[in-house]
Amino acid sequence: MMRRDRLFLAATLTAIFSADLYFILLPKLRSMGQGSGHFCSCGPNNLTLPRHGGLATPQLSNWTSLPPLYDTTSEPIDGGSKLGRLFAHPLYNIQIPALGPEERLLHAEQLMEYYRRKVSRWERHMKLYSEAAAVSNITVTEHKVTFDPDASWLKFHLGISRYALYSRDDLAVPQLLKEMQSMTVIGADYTQDEKALKGACDCTQVVKPSGHHLKLALKMQNFAKAMFKPMRQQRDEETPEDFFYFVDFQRHNAEIAAFHLDRILDFRRVPPVAGRLVNVTGEILQVTHNEDLRAVFFTSPANNTCFFAKCLYVCKTEYAVCGNPNLLEGSLSAYLPGLSIAPRISIPNPWIRSYTFTGREEWEVNPFFCDTIKQLYPYNSGNRLLNIIDMSIFDFLIGNMDRHHYEIFTKFGDEGFLLHLDNARGFGKHSQDEMSILAPLSQCCMIKRSTLLRLQLLTRPEYRLSDVMKESLEGDPLQPILTEPHLLALDRRLQKVLRVVQRCVRRLGEDEVITKDFIKSTVKPQTATDMGKVR
Amino acid sequence: MMRRDRLFLAATLTAIFSADLYFILLPKLRSMGQGSGHFCSCGPNNLTLPRHGGLATPQLSNWTSLPPLYDTTSEPIDGGSKLGRLFAHPLYNIQIPALGPEERLLHAEQLMEYYRRKVSRWERHMKLYSEAAAVSNITVTEHKVTFDPDASWLKFHLGISRYALYSRDDLAVPQLLKEMQSMTVIGADYTQDEKALKGACDCTQVVKPSGHHLKLALKMQNFAKAMFKPMRQQRDEETPEDFFYFVDFQRHNAEIAAFHLDRILDFRRVPPVAGRLVNVTGEILQVTHNEDLRAVFFTSPANNTCFFAKCLYVCKTEYAVCGNPNLLEGSLSAYLPGLSIAPRISIPNPWIRSYTFTGREEWEVNPFFCDTIKQLYPYNSGNRLLNIIDMSIFDFLIGNMDRHHYEIFTKFGDEGFLLHLDNARGFGKHSQDEMSILAPLSQCCMIKRSTLLRLQLLTRPEYRLSDVMKESLEGDPLQPILTEPHLLALDRRLQKVLRVVQRCVRRLGEDEVITKDFIKSTVKPQTATDMGKVR
Repeated sequence: MMRRDRLFLAATLTAIFSADLYFILLPKLRSMGQGSGHFCSCGPNNLTLPRHGGLATPQLSNWTSLPPLYDTTSEPIDGGSKLGRLFAHPLYNIQIPALGPEERLLHAEQLMEYYRRKVSRWERHMKLYSEAAAVSNITVTEHKVTFDPDASWLKFHLGISRYALYSRDDLAVPQLLKEMQSMTVIGADYTQDEKALKGACDCTQVVKPSGHHLKLALKMQNFAKAMFKPMRQQRDEETPEDFFYFVDFQRHNAEIAAFHLDRILDFRRVPPVAGRLVNVTGEILQVTHNEDLRAVFFTSPANNTCFFAKCLYVCKTEYAVCGNPNLLEGSLSAYLPGLSIAPRISIPNPWIRSYTFTGREEWEVNPFFCDTIKQLYPYNSGNRLLNIIDMSIFDFLIGNMDRHHYEIFTKFGDEGFLLHLDNARGFGKHSQDEMSILAPLSQCCMIKRSTLLRLQLLTRPEYRLSDVMKESLEGDPLQPILTEPHLLALDRRLQKVLRVVQRCVRRLGEDEVITKDFIKSTVKPQTATDMGKVR
Repeated sequence: MMRRDRLFLAATLTAIFSADLYFILLPKLRSMGQGSGHFCSCGPNNLTLPRHGGLATPQLSNWTSLPPLYDTTSEPIDGGSKLGRLFAHPLYNIQIPALGPEERLLHAEQLMEYYRRKVSRWERHMKLYSEAAAVSNITVTEHKVTFDPDASWLKFHLGISRYALYSRDDLAVPQLLKEMQSMTVIGADYTQDEKALKGACDCTQVVKPSGHHLKLALKMQNFAKAMFKPMRQQRDEETPEDFFYFVDFQRHNAEIAAFHLDRILDFRRVPPVAGRLVNVTGEILQVTHNEDLRAVFFTSPANNTCFFAKCLYVCKTEYAVCGNPNLLEGSLSAYLPGLSIAPRISIPNPWIRSYTFTGREEWEVNPFFCDTIKQLYPYNSGNRLLNIIDMSIFDFLIGNMDRHHYEIFTKFGDEGFLLHLDNARGFGKHSQDEMSILAPLSQCCMIKRSTLLRLQLLTRPEYRLSDVMKESLEGDPLQPILTEPHLLALDRRLQKVLRVVQRCVRRLGEDEVITKDFIKSTVKPQTATDMGKVR
């Protein structure tokens, strides 16, 4: 009996050893052998990155002038930071001309006056509210509000120009991210969008069912305002394949990742977004003055504090989000300047989708759709169409199918940049590359040279998009923001974008496809109401 | 260089080998050593299974008379079938007296007449409908309807007695299960409940939000009717801990498993339920004559056929269920005889829960609640309270917190058995044993002797509940119906039930707690309207 056991032991050990040798050790040795070889560049070969001289009048600024977003990336540039190296690259250091007052969104005095008015109105309101609350036996936490002329949100607002939401070396952005992550919240309320619905969501419309919208406006101690979107989905959950894009969840991590990607692409058209663990009791329930909002809070069977959407048609708790027991992950997006001092216009995307089960829009069936669009104001001159194509590349990379409108600041007219707001429906499926999002690029066969160069740069191993994204996202307190498959999808999609450009170049030639930036508009604008509604 | 590689190789192999030895081989050898030992019985020691003579007048019928539910369990009883052995046990072969006509729910002639009327009404309707459909260009699949006096559903209905929904040796039950699994579906419609709502679900009520209710009534070729509940959740998904029981999903597999458990407990108060892969296009969309139902069908982005709840307030697709591309798992529960020939009464459960966020019912705060209930008709005599306790044990085992009402057949009055309908909210969390479901048992400290004996039997290794459940469920086409953790939870919960009984016996003595079955009622019934609403 003993001998059989020994034989069995010996046989088992041999088998385990062989399996280890075959499945673990040999592959390891093989990969070690490969590691000592040279990197193989995988970019498309006939679209090589030109020297800097190939750019439309690039003026190279100081290579090291760009501050890191977070302290974690502040290693020396020759150290391990790919992100630092990327931002130090000449392509990311093209100087724009000094800004005249008309090229800035706001004047400092105007904004300060606005801020002062807001603070004094808040103080009046607080006084009245505290008295009323005492009578109705409601306990509200009262935080002191500070008037801080050096607040980072003020600097962010003052830094908005006709070229971008912030400049590359704007120190206010990392400061604002930090403040959104930690500053005391003094107020919470529904957003204006939510209030406009008045809980009477129209269910005959399938567009934007607001049941999933639980976004709130949070006010910080120094009057910074941020939009809070709570976590609705785990990082590793994928959108079910049967979901239409318009009923998909909004993902807080997509909102965060989109800001970082937009910065890495050097668009700077997404307002700063930071992750934060919000205490739903202390930082929402106890600081809101809105009775409707207070009324949607409840304690779950697991003793967690939860709240649900205001929208009355949803039967409440199945839509709820819950803290653990009070802390809830979410994204905080910095508010843009109020519409009263910086009006924006919301314009339907020409490549809008049909928000119905069966409908199809013209661009989906007409391959020459872009020829029509190119004839139409404001797409018939200037950078507008190129900006739309930039936006489609951005949306393709994040997998966002929900870009029904875009916004611009009215002050800058048609030459202003497009705002890439509301990116929470990106990063839903890492395994699917929705090519239809690229329709503006593939149908118009145009791309800005500066965009293309940066995309090509990001395919290089030393600046690989997934690597710089990962590094950039590591600074967020809610890291990891994206799972590995989502990061790798970015590299794969980037290749697909370049392949579309390559096909266009092969068909039409480089001069037709790759367009110089900063083209001046030659057509007079029509009235704003032709284009969309002023917000 | 070569030598270093070799050294590395040798070191790695040694490390892998040691790890294997420690983590894989040694534990294996250890478990082999343990396997050769004896089973350790874990049942409570002071509540031993008495001899059969301990039962209230048990009359043992033929041990082998019980037919298996499915062919797969038809091995010889001395073979591997624990389920066969269980059903052959004397406890499962207590004969009830021969049934008089008043103890049967229906007369054969009455049911046949009802069936004949239904068939001819259907044929008239089909003729008119086909003409109308041809005019409006609707294609409806027309299946021939058969009038079959030997149909299993007729036998099932005729077999319902004042003691149970079916007798232990009723061959109609396995036949009915088989037919529900495969018979041609000739019609599909909303259930009466759903129709009563008329899509106008009241969202100010949190009770039973119907958005999750997608149940449909399917009609088979031989006029058998079954309620279809589609799969909403994967087998391995657990109900989120923050969900209230009243917003939990309905689970098709819980519906199936509950039928099997009820049969294993020998209650026979759940109508037969079978799993089926339903073709949502061919077996619902193309056979329904209900325009509303047809209107909720759509094709998903992944090209699957889907449908959503009728309830208008839900914004449709996020509640949808989808086939793949047409096939969808679901449970089919056999319909009980129509209310016109076999009226039922729906009675609020005395241990009903508060269907609000914060409310608490009296039983939750008053430990002497049962003393009050015991004074009240119909719980003050007969078996009613014992039946409620049976039901609470059943609900505790499946983890169902949603038993707000129960139903009885009016014909049998207060001595009739309780129907355990609607069990789809069971089996939500395998890791939680919700002791409050057992309140009727723990507060009243009473249990039927026959119930207790069977529960004790099911703790024995040779009849272990999880094993017989697993075996019973293996016959269903959608197997596996329950994941292993859910099966094991049954054993754990069974022990907890017995521990509650044990504590009662220790406190009050066996005579007070363990009650003889078949007590005759001594109190005259009041009017039915005092008790609940007649359905």
